Amino acid sequence: MNQTDLLNVLRRWGVRVDRALNKVLPRERTPPAVIHKAMRYSVFAGGKRLRPFLCLTAAEICGGRPESAMPTACALEVLHTYSLVHDDLPAMDDDDLRRGRPTNHKVFGEGMAILAGDALLTHAFRLMAENARVPGVSAARAVEVVRVVAEAAGSLGMVGGQAVDLASADGATRGGPRARVLDFIHRRKTGALIKASLDAGAVLAGGTSKQRRALATYGEQIGLAFQIADDVLDIVGNKKLLGKRGSDRDNGKLTFPAVYGLEESRRRAARAVARAKDALSLFGKKAETLSALADYIIERDR
Amino acid sequence: MNQTDLLNVLRRWGVRVDRALNKVLPRERTPPAVIHKAMRYSVFAGGKRLRPFLCLTAAEICGGRPESAMPTACALEVLHTYSLVHDDLPAMDDDDLRRGRPTNHKVFGEGMAILAGDALLTHAFRLMAENARVPGVSAARAVEVVRVVAEAAGSLGMVGGQAVDLASADGATRGGPRARVLDFIHRRKTGALIKASLDAGAVLAGGTSKQRRALATYGEQIGLAFQIADDVLDIVGNKKLLGKRGSDRDNGKLTFPAVYGLEESRRRAARAVARAKDALSLFGKKAETLSALADYIIERDR
Repeated sequence: MNQTDLLNVLRRWGVRVDRALNKVLPRERTPPAVIHKAMRYSVFAGGKRLRPFLCLTAAEICGGRPESAMPTACALEVLHTYSLVHDDLPAMDDDDLRRGRPTNHKVFGEGMAILAGDALLTHAFRLMAENARVPGVSAARAVEVVRVVAEAAGSLGMVGGQAVDLASADGATRGGPRARVLDFIHRRKTGALIKASLDAGAVLAGGTSKQRRALATYGEQIGLAFQIADDVLDIVGNKKLLGKRGSDRDNGKLTFPAVYGLEESRRRAARAVARAKDALSLFGKKAETLSALADYIIERDR
Repeated sequence: MNQTDLLNVLRRWGVRVDRALNKVLPRERTPPAVIHKAMRYSVFAGGKRLRPFLCLTAAEICGGRPESAMPTACALEVLHTYSLVHDDLPAMDDDDLRRGRPTNHKVFGEGMAILAGDALLTHAFRLMAENARVPGVSAARAVEVVRVVAEAAGSLGMVGGQAVDLASADGATRGGPRARVLDFIHRRKTGALIKASLDAGAVLAGGTSKQRRALATYGEQIGLAFQIADDVLDIVGNKKLLGKRGSDRDNGKLTFPAVYGLEESRRRAARAVARAKDALSLFGKKAETLSALADYIIERDR
């Protein structure tokens, strides 16, 4: 599958996910309106819907109907959005812009942005639970999704990565083994939820443990490639085009180019992509979109 | 049941819940240690474990083994703790002390306190999902608990109440119907999770819809009584004894005594307690602890 085809597939799923998100989020007029406005502001800020796409596609290649994983696909995007809203806060990365728009706390105030994030995180779990109402999805599968995603998003996963990132920005890890800290952060901060998105789709479709393991490896490796590519883009990319400040560098954070240099970072990303594609061999031709996606990750910065 | 007996029952359950909480939270040494320290700091800050008690007792009077609801009971306390950590933040109530100890962000910093709250909220849902592993608890019941608690804790419940509270402190509701705003806030901010704690226990024990409705009414009414009593205590209570500043008044927030006056507030609390106890008649003598608890709520400030 070439890049144009991949982008078309991504776009088509993105439209369906956006329509579903619009339905599963409380309306702006529903009281309390202020928090529902804040929640929707950040969910509909033009994301690529990568995590829903991974969840739906994993369900499909494990033999399920992708649509039956839609509530969970929405939940993953909602959960991802909460993490962005909280990451942007003054006490964290202190970003004023995200994708070219003012960040949530710039528009709604800091307290409301904290609450909007809390509400999004909470709503995500409600959506995962409600996935059990979809015909053909057992409660056992839905509850396993809640467990898998909570583990990936919590202190041992995404939030844990963010905590170490925050501590390392404060210089708490100065003098420590930087490469190890970097690895710890990125496996968790981005990788854990990407891996869980694939696993959630596989679980909902009744995937075998062999299929789940293969998708886990794929998820870990594209998560890594994705993070390296992001770090690289932050240095070489056109910041205006990406719509965010190059704040990672400004804050003196650990990044792949800072630890390994630009060329070695690119080599590592390429290696991760190769490993990700290897893991898909189990699925044969059915996995061609996921395979094309892996390639696309490192081609963005060319 | 007299007050001494009630306090003994509460204390006994409190010890068991604390032991369970110690097991289900990541150890302080588990990396990243910084966030696990922050999580444990606030969970083990001397709470009464009211929500776990309500959950376990509801399970018991609906005919279940209370111990089989323990993971969810812990989840409710962990979730309650997250809400306190975030409420105390500078962008929210800006409290320096809670139960006589420095608040989470005073000890760990604002960013880490936000993350600790996020991690606690996430972990709570993991614990509810893991309740499905307890023999005799079906996945269907565990998934219904996730749904019920997420609804009660989200933008239509607890976080929504906090959002309106925040907006009203900013004066956004000035000139509005104060009694209605106050009702909206308190039904959600405290009431929703108390009600959900009872419902979660009932669901796990396979309670009938009649039992669930009765406990919902009880929960709504004690939630209301609890909030009024808290507002009253905030004015007449010994602040040193409670270990918190009288910050509600300082911030010019809506409280029951501010809207209704002290005496009418006490009358309303007493009425709520009477209604709560009425709702328990269905359970007969089995509900005597819950009945005694309702009385205790308004007797604290005498």
